[in-house]
Amino acid sequence: MNVEQVKRLFGKSVRKHRMAAGLTQEGLADAAELDRSYVGSVERGERNLSIENVCRLAFAIGVTPSDLFDWWDSK
Amino acid sequence: MNVEQVKRLFGKSVRKHRMAAGLTQEGLADAAELDRSYVGSVERGERNLSIENVCRLAFAIGVTPSDLFDWWDSK
Repeated sequence: MNVEQVKRLFGKSVRKHRMAAGLTQEGLADAAELDRSYVGSVERGERNLSIENVCRLAFAIGVTPSDLFDWWDSK
Repeated sequence: MNVEQVKRLFGKSVRKHRMAAGLTQEGLADAAELDRSYVGSVERGERNLSIENVCRLAFAIGVTPSDLFDWWDSK
Protein backbone atom coordinates (compact mmCIF):
# COMPACT_ATOMS: atom_id res chain seq x y z
CA MET A 1 0.00 0.00 0.00
CA ASN A 2 1.53 3.29 -1.02
CA VAL A 3 -0.01 6.70 -1.23
CA GLU A 4 0.21 7.05 -5.01
CA GLN A 5 -1.69 3.80 -5.44
CA VAL A 6 -4.30 4.82 -2.89
CA LYS A 7 -4.86 8.16 -4.67
CA ARG A 8 -5.04 6.49 -8.08
CA LEU A 9 -7.44 3.71 -7.07
CA PHE A 10 -9.62 6.08 -5.08
CA GLY A 11 -9.85 8.42 -8.07
CA LYS A 12 -10.82 5.59 -10.42
CA SER A 13 -13.53 4.58 -7.98
CA VAL A 14 -14.97 8.11 -7.83
CA ARG A 15 -15.08 8.18 -11.64
CA LYS A 16 -16.72 4.74 -11.85
CA HIS A 17 -19.43 5.59 -9.32
CA ARG A 18 -20.00 9.07 -10.76
CA MET A 19 -20.53 7.65 -14.25
CA ALA A 20 -22.78 4.87 -12.93
CA ALA A 21 -24.89 7.62 -11.35
CA GLY A 22 -25.09 9.43 -14.69
CA LEU A 23 -23.32 12.53 -13.40
CA THR A 24 -20.83 14.72 -15.22
CA GLN A 25 -17.75 16.01 -13.37
CA GLU A 26 -19.42 19.40 -13.37
CA GLY A 27 -22.68 18.00 -11.99
CA LEU A 28 -20.80 16.19 -9.26
CA ALA A 29 -18.75 19.26 -8.39
CA ASP A 30 -21.92 21.34 -8.09
CA ALA A 31 -23.71 18.75 -5.98
CA ALA A 32 -20.71 18.33 -3.69
CA GLU A 33 -20.02 22.07 -3.53
CA LEU A 34 -16.49 21.46 -4.72
CA ASP A 35 -14.52 22.93 -7.58
CA ARG A 36 -14.81 21.17 -10.93
CA SER A 37 -11.02 21.21 -11.33
CA TYR A 38 -10.69 19.67 -7.87
CA VAL A 39 -13.03 16.81 -8.83
CA GLY A 40 -10.99 16.29 -12.00
CA SER A 41 -7.76 16.09 -10.01
CA VAL A 42 -9.34 13.62 -7.57
CA GLU A 43 -10.37 11.37 -10.48
CA ARG A 44 -6.87 11.60 -11.98
CA GLY A 45 -5.46 10.30 -8.70
CA GLU A 46 -3.71 13.52 -7.80
CA ARG A 47 -5.35 14.15 -4.42
CA ASN A 48 -4.78 12.74 -0.98
CA LEU A 49 -8.18 14.04 0.02
CA SER A 50 -9.68 14.32 3.49
CA ILE A 51 -12.47 12.26 4.99
CA GLU A 52 -14.70 15.34 4.80
CA ASN A 53 -14.33 15.48 1.02
CA VAL A 54 -14.70 11.70 0.72
CA CYS A 55 -18.07 12.05 2.45
CA ARG A 56 -19.10 15.06 0.36
CA LEU A 57 -18.35 13.21 -2.87
CA ALA A 58 -20.08 10.02 -1.74
CA PHE A 59 -23.16 11.91 -0.62
CA ALA A 60 -23.34 13.86 -3.89
CA ILE A 61 -22.97 10.67 -5.97
CA GLY A 62 -25.54 8.84 -3.87
CA VAL A 63 -23.24 6.10 -2.63
CA THR A 64 -21.59 5.51 0.75
CA PRO A 65 -18.00 6.47 1.59
CA SER A 66 -17.40 2.71 1.92
CA ASP A 67 -18.40 2.24 -1.71
CA LEU A 68 -15.59 4.59 -2.76
CA PHE A 69 -13.12 2.18 -1.12
CA ASP A 70 -14.60 -0.93 -2.77
CA TRP A 71 -11.34 -1.47 -4.68
CA TRP A 72 -9.56 -2.41 -1.46
CA ASP A 73 -8.68 -6.08 -1.25
CA SER A 74 -10.16 -7.39 1.96
CA LYS A 75 -7.30 -9.96 2.03
CA MET B 1 -23.36 15.88 7.13
CA ASN B 2 -20.88 18.27 8.64
CA VAL B 3 -17.16 17.93 9.09
CA GLU B 4 -17.23 17.82 12.91
CA GLN B 5 -19.67 14.93 12.79
CA VAL B 6 -17.61 13.10 10.17
CA LYS B 7 -14.44 13.46 12.27
CA ARG B 8 -16.22 12.35 15.44
CA LEU B 9 -17.94 9.30 13.92
CA PHE B 10 -14.82 8.27 12.06
CA GLY B 11 -12.78 8.48 15.27
CA LYS B 12 -15.30 6.38 17.19
CA SER B 13 -15.13 3.78 14.44
CA VAL B 14 -11.33 3.62 14.58
CA ARG B 15 -11.52 3.10 18.34
CA LYS B 16 -14.22 0.41 18.02
CA HIS B 17 -12.31 -1.57 15.40
CA ARG B 18 -8.96 -1.13 17.19
CA MET B 19 -10.40 -2.49 20.44
CA ALA B 20 -12.13 -5.36 18.64
CA ALA B 21 -8.72 -6.26 17.21
CA GLY B 22 -7.23 -6.24 20.71
CA LEU B 23 -4.81 -3.40 19.93
CA THR B 24 -3.75 -0.56 22.19
CA GLN B 25 -3.43 2.95 20.75
CA GLU B 26 0.32 2.49 20.97
CA GLY B 27 0.21 -0.86 19.20
CA LEU B 28 -1.90 0.61 16.44
CA ALA B 29 0.36 3.64 16.10
CA ASP B 30 3.42 1.39 15.78
CA ALA B 31 1.76 -0.90 13.25
CA ALA B 32 0.52 2.04 11.17
CA GLU B 33 3.82 3.95 11.51
CA LEU B 34 1.96 6.91 12.90
CA ASP B 35 2.43 8.90 16.06
CA ARG B 36 0.61 7.67 19.17
CA SER B 37 -0.64 11.20 19.85
CA TYR B 38 -1.93 11.40 16.29
CA VAL B 39 -3.90 8.16 16.72
CA GLY B 40 -5.32 9.54 19.96
CA SER B 41 -6.44 12.72 18.23
CA VAL B 42 -8.05 10.71 15.40
CA GLU B 43 -10.03 8.69 17.95
CA ARG B 44 -11.12 11.86 19.75
CA GLY B 45 -12.56 13.13 16.47
CA GLU B 46 -10.06 15.93 16.08
CA ARG B 47 -8.64 14.99 12.68
CA ASN B 48 -9.87 15.46 9.14
CA LEU B 49 -7.43 12.82 8.02
CA SER B 50 -6.37 11.90 4.51
CA ILE B 51 -7.25 8.77 2.57
CA GLU B 52 -3.63 7.67 2.93
CA ASN B 53 -3.92 7.62 6.71
CA VAL B 54 -7.37 6.02 6.53
CA CYS B 55 -5.76 3.16 4.60
CA ARG B 56 -2.74 2.95 6.93
CA LEU B 57 -5.00 2.67 9.98
CA ALA B 58 -7.32 0.13 8.34
CA PHE B 59 -4.40 -2.01 7.21
CA ALA B 60 -2.79 -1.90 10.66
CA ILE B 61 -6.07 -2.85 12.38
CA GLY B 62 -6.74 -5.62 9.88
CA VAL B 63 -9.99 -4.21 8.52
CA THR B 64 -10.83 -2.47 5.24
CA PRO B 65 -11.08 1.30 4.81
CA SER B 66 -14.78 0.67 4.10
CA ASP B 67 -15.17 -0.84 7.58
CA LEU B 68 -14.01 2.45 9.10
CA PHE B 69 -16.98 4.15 7.41
CA ASP B 70 -19.52 1.56 8.56
CA TRP B 71 -21.28 4.21 10.67
CA TRP B 72 -22.51 5.96 7.51
CA ASP B 73 -26.24 5.60 6.96
CA SER B 74 -26.70 4.14 3.51
CA LYS B 75 -30.08 5.89 3.35
